[in-house]
Amino acid sequence: MPVTIILYDLVGADKRRPFSPHCWKAKMALAHKRLQWRDVPTPFTGVAGIEGEGSTVPKLRDGERVVCDSFRIALYLEETYPDRPSLFNGEGGKAAARFVENWTTSELHTVFGKAAVLDIYERLAEVDREHLRRTREARFGMPIEEAARIGGEQMATIAGRLQPLRAMLAHQPFIGGGKPLFADYIVFGALQWMRVISPQQVLTEDDPVRAWFETCLDLHDGLGRRTPAAA
Amino acid sequence: MPVTIILYDLVGADKRRPFSPHCWKAKMALAHKRLQWRDVPTPFTGVAGIEGEGSTVPKLRDGERVVCDSFRIALYLEETYPDRPSLFNGEGGKAAARFVENWTTSELHTVFGKAAVLDIYERLAEVDREHLRRTREARFGMPIEEAARIGGEQMATIAGRLQPLRAMLAHQPFIGGGKPLFADYIVFGALQWMRVISPQQVLTEDDPVRAWFETCLDLHDGLGRRTPAAA
Repeated sequence: MPVTIILYDLVGADKRRPFSPHCWKAKMALAHKRLQWRDVPTPFTGVAGIEGEGSTVPKLRDGERVVCDSFRIALYLEETYPDRPSLFNGEGGKAAARFVENWTTSELHTVFGKAAVLDIYERLAEVDREHLRRTREARFGMPIEEAARIGGEQMATIAGRLQPLRAMLAHQPFIGGGKPLFADYIVFGALQWMRVISPQQVLTEDDPVRAWFETCLDLHDGLGRRTPAAA
Repeated sequence: MPVTIILYDLVGADKRRPFSPHCWKAKMALAHKRLQWRDVPTPFTGVAGIEGEGSTVPKLRDGERVVCDSFRIALYLEETYPDRPSLFNGEGGKAAARFVENWTTSELHTVFGKAAVLDIYERLAEVDREHLRRTREARFGMPIEEAARIGGEQMATIAGRLQPLRAMLAHQPFIGGGKPLFADYIVFGALQWMRVISPQQVLTEDDPVRAWFETCLDLHDGLGRRTPAAA
């Protein structure tokens, strides 16, 4: 069967090292649904022009349909492929995944986005570096060098920020319960982002969150682990 | 039909002002299931002796069954009364509620438990005051007066700690989606604890979390609101 699904996936200078947390969420969702897809490596400055819809990645084309935003992609896949493994295990799981998404954004992305901004910058092509500096300096309201310094300091708070997940892991192996669901991929995406783009260590060796993350790296034939960690 | 469900519910000197966050979760779950039950007001020093099982409240007796722990009570009600409104809307919601529980404990209870300890102390009978001081000083590793001072300082971080919920409320009215589920009652329990036992203000008037909390106070014929706020 021909592969009809295309995923536009953010990359830097090295096309084999996609790093966007949101694109990782979408790829884990596709793999969870046991779908075949083709990644289209897309640099920052290539995002605006694709498929004429929105200006963000991930962007998914499935036949005639184009869907932006990782959560909307997950909802689309759940609705379109109901006979494949569920990403939410019901409406309650779907709703709660929105809480997990906003927890991840509020507690992790806000720190990682600053702490890793120079790591990202260094791994981009020249034209994308200009794009990153301009957009991030507008977002942070400061030079990216200053944001990186502040973010680096905030990295000391990450272990504490992850405490809700760590405490939950004493009850069950995944946010999805006995098996991972999209809610797990949401948090995985943030940690995979850091793993792929930054040499900064986020999790200590003995952190139960680390064990959960390593398990997630192995899911779906090691999809996450196939992209090596940043050196 | 005779009321066969009994809930042992923590109270201080005023039996009409139950304050335990965990008991509030259980009561909201019972009301959500449209069950009739009878509260048994139980002071701290009365908990150990009841029903010969465990030494915590809430404790639920339903005919011959005794169930401790608010989450286990919710699971019990979901399993025993499957035809009543669901508390989880599926297995995904059930699993994610564990994350919400651990988020609430890690981010809210840790602060409220210290910040409100003297408010609680003042509202207990003499014999229960001794119990509270002994158990909390063992837990906190410091005099409750010192814990209250530290917790009071940490109250300044609560608005930030609630950001994941606040951000989610821009997407949907409840953690349960369009309607509240047990996950909402978990967070509600923490805020209702503070509302009933402490004059400290947790939420500003214009906080979307405040609007959500007020809505929760009105649920189930105003079950939460019927216990007045601490003066």
